[in-house]
Amino acid sequence: MNVIKRREAILPGSFDPPTNGHLDIIRRSALLYDKLYVIVADNVQKHYFFSSRERQEMLADLLKDSPNIEIHVWSGLVVEFARQRKIGVMIRGVRALVDFGYEFELAMTNKQLYPELEVLFMPTSPEYFILRSSGIKEMAAYGADISMMVPASVALKIKERVTLLT
Amino acid sequence: MNVIKRREAILPGSFDPPTNGHLDIIRRSALLYDKLYVIVADNVQKHYFFSSRERQEMLADLLKDSPNIEIHVWSGLVVEFARQRKIGVMIRGVRALVDFGYEFELAMTNKQLYPELEVLFMPTSPEYFILRSSGIKEMAAYGADISMMVPASVALKIKERVTLLT
Amino acid sequence: MNVIKRREAILPGSFDPPTNGHLDIIRRSALLYDKLYVIVADNVQKHYFFSSRERQEMLADLLKDSPNIEIHVWSGLVVEFARQRKIGVMIRGVRALVDFGYEFELAMTNKQLYPELEVLFMPTSPEYFILRSSGIKEMAAYGADISMMVPASVALKIKERVTLLT
Amino acid sequence: MNVIKRREAILPGSFDPPTNGHLDIIRRSALLYDKLYVIVADNVQKHYFFSSRERQEMLADLLKDSPNIEIHVWSGLVVEFARQRKIGVMIRGVRALVDFGYEFELAMTNKQLYPELEVLFMPTSPEYFILRSSGIKEMAAYGADISMMVPASVALKIKERVTLLT
Amino acid sequence: MNVIKRREAILPGSFDPPTNGHLDIIRRSALLYDKLYVIVADNVQKHYFFSSRERQEMLADLLKDSPNIEIHVWSGLVVEFARQRKIGVMIRGVRALVDFGYEFELAMTNKQLYPELEVLFMPTSPEYFILRSSGIKEMAAYGADISMMVPASVALKIKERVTLLT
Amino acid sequence: MNVIKRREAILPGSFDPPTNGHLDIIRRSALLYDKLYVIVADNVQKHYFFSSRERQEMLADLLKDSPNIEIHVWSGLVVEFARQRKIGVMIRGVRALVDFGYEFELAMTNKQLYPELEVLFMPTSPEYFILRSSGIKEMAAYGADISMMVPASVALKIKERVTLLT
Repeated sequence: MNVIKRREAILPGSFDPPTNGHLDIIRRSALLYDKLYVIVADNVQKHYFFSSRERQEMLADLLKDSPNIEIHVWSGLVVEFARQRKIGVMIRGVRALVDFGYEFELAMTNKQLYPELEVLFMPTSPEYFILRSSGIKEMAAYGADISMMVPASVALKIKERVTLLT
Repeated sequence: MNVIKRREAILPGSFDPPTNGHLDIIRRSALLYDKLYVIVADNVQKHYFFSSRERQEMLADLLKDSPNIEIHVWSGLVVEFARQRKIGVMIRGVRALVDFGYEFELAMTNKQLYPELEVLFMPTSPEYFILRSSGIKEMAAYGADISMMVPASVALKIKERVTLLT
Repeated sequence: MNVIKRREAILPGSFDPPTNGHLDIIRRSALLYDKLYVIVADNVQKHYFFSSRERQEMLADLLKDSPNIEIHVWSGLVVEFARQRKIGVMIRGVRALVDFGYEFELAMTNKQLYPELEVLFMPTSPEYFILRSSGIKEMAAYGADISMMVPASVALKIKERVTLLT
Repeated sequence: MNVIKRREAILPGSFDPPTNGHLDIIRRSALLYDKLYVIVADNVQKHYFFSSRERQEMLADLLKDSPNIEIHVWSGLVVEFARQRKIGVMIRGVRALVDFGYEFELAMTNKQLYPELEVLFMPTSPEYFILRSSGIKEMAAYGADISMMVPASVALKIKERVTLLT
Repeated sequence: MNVIKRREAILPGSFDPPTNGHLDIIRRSALLYDKLYVIVADNVQKHYFFSSRERQEMLADLLKDSPNIEIHVWSGLVVEFARQRKIGVMIRGVRALVDFGYEFELAMTNKQLYPELEVLFMPTSPEYFILRSSGIKEMAAYGADISMMVPASVALKIKERVTLLT
Repeated sequence: MNVIKRREAILPGSFDPPTNGHLDIIRRSALLYDKLYVIVADNVQKHYFFSSRERQEMLADLLKDSPNIEIHVWSGLVVEFARQRKIGVMIRGVRALVDFGYEFELAMTNKQLYPELEVLFMPTSPEYFILRSSGIKEMAAYGADISMMVPASVALKIKERVTLLT
């Protein structure tokens, strides 16, 4: 009996903070599956700008109108989240060739650990071909206008945090 | 009312001839959707080795055990097939960075013509990272052993055709 | 005495037909130089959809409000046009990594033939990351809507030509 | 009234230390513009081998014969330097495909923050396709001969610094 | 008199730990040369999971049946090892385009320091297109099964080390 | 008994005509092996500028001082030449990332047809990063100076041929 849930997908990321590009990929993916698990990665060896709980709350607030999205914090290997729940698909947003090499390699590793998983790449919309979350935080630290890159509520939270740090 | 069918997908290609790599992508995709339309492209400006009908029959024979796969010959723009039937997803197999640049560009064009379409890239399994259909035909013409690259029935048909041409 | 004109630039292409992406690069480049030479390549070994005169006329019509742009048909090596007039800069629009490898190589060859030339790459605006001219003509032949990809006058000319050919 | 200065350009970098490749790009760019601003980036979160003042002095010494070059230390976003002075062009040296993906992305971000800016890519001359500044310092630390990679005065300063550190 | 030893090669790496992919490249290379020097890099600025001695011992144990392989720990520039012994070839395993850009650049730098050296790239076998050593250690830390990625003896050593650290 | 000759290599190409870049790769490879077979590909489906015999003679003349080089015309699959003679190595010159994707794929196909073969990539020297043979012929047809790109004897032969054709 094949119990892999192929109408459910996970969409992992750091989301530190969530950008308009992240939301674009999440909302488009949610239309394609019965259930979409957004996985907020919490790697103990990494230093985050926002805590995993803050990142989860920002996403929950921004996506509260999407009933088939669940947002989880996960501190293990992402592929393990999918394997334990027998979720059949992982969606990865790709912006350009820059992302693709690493993503391809990661997809092959994930399939070795959980062979039934299909990793699908979804191209980011051209209007969100902007620098990563890390670039946005750096720009905010310099006082640049980031309102076109992140939702208004996230821009506000970044501003508060940046002010606190200086 | 949203009538886009997001649990149905198209998978276009020339399939001239179908390779083991094509079958890998088709079979894995068929598991992910309620219905998968395999589209045999028939571009009047291209010269094919096998006719569109031969390519369709080879695929039909190889995939006869997959009840949710339909195989269509299509001589228009592939995106138009999806738009007319309101199919929500197009799957493209990608083998490596070589493929990806062109595919990314094509995906953006297709979205301009049919914005509701999601183009998803599925990585080919490493064991099928072999030369394209065109390379396989060339090797067959030189008498090389192609039995690891195409199904036995296709290898036989290529051999017959090559012999006829010489 | 250094007589290379470094405030003048050439911008070569096939422009078969001119697209919105071409016009974006041409208009942005014209702002940067005292004079911009748009070079309509006319390679006798290539088969064009529009004649070099038609392509020149379409560009002349579209750019008639830009006094510092000259449009030339040229059937030799493009670098030779620049070398004979001692023009110091060549602008090449680049859309993505796909274009870049070939462009880089071509730039190095051009510098070998005319060492004083500087080849500068200008990124295409993301909204014009669409398929090349060749793709647009193919789409038009299939009856697809190309009004977002080329100026209205060019769309009309393509339609007339396509109808004539069928 | 359009007051963007399109005959002036900025050329940003870390220049830690300046290499022959940097000087090649700077000197070729200075020929193309009325004024060239070389921007020595001073990012507080980065750890430099030479202080911003040392890097500025090395460049000033090496470029003292170029009257239209100004060398500035800047600790903010580089695009902001251009925006405040209404400079119309940013030059980025690119060595190969490796550089290009990141540069393309950065260019698009910079245009979002300052839309009138044109980012132009200039290919590095093949003889300077060498490892980055970071690689040169590592080689110097191992005692390797770096005299073909940096000006003699810079090689001397690196040697002094390396000796001091051991 | 030309005394460069062109039937001897070096094969450098961190090997932290040795993977099946490393062993594939080493064994295939050893067939091509009279003597193969496997160089265990020991960069004082890097933090390793296994000490250079442990890495050397693991390799020595795994390769004890190959009489023409010597395993050396080296803390200088790798190219210097080759230059001092007048070894004529350096082999670098490459897995895909991701690796290649950096490798190309490094090869050109190495030839500047030791012009007689030939750097040859050997493609990794597709079955070893997995994440780098760093990825394998991360997976092991999460308790994932890494037995297909490293030899059994290495998997055991990683497990011991991971347990010790927690 | 292992009879694969791993100190012999083949180096295939069209050599239509031989360029300075080709000669650089051939001469460097010849130093690394007891015997180097330069294979002049003669694909009946391709149209060449120089006949296979002319290409062979040009190479023979240019390489007459290298006693361990043999030049063969071959109209089959190149890998077959190696397999029949049990030659263990194939050298491929690579200029940059542009070449590498296709080369990687081809190497994997060749290993499927002849698993004992090792395909090694040798980076072209930066001074030969010029356009392919096809570009050189096009430049010659336009009367451009190609004397830095091909040996003098080849430049002469191209000139004669171009004159004959016009």
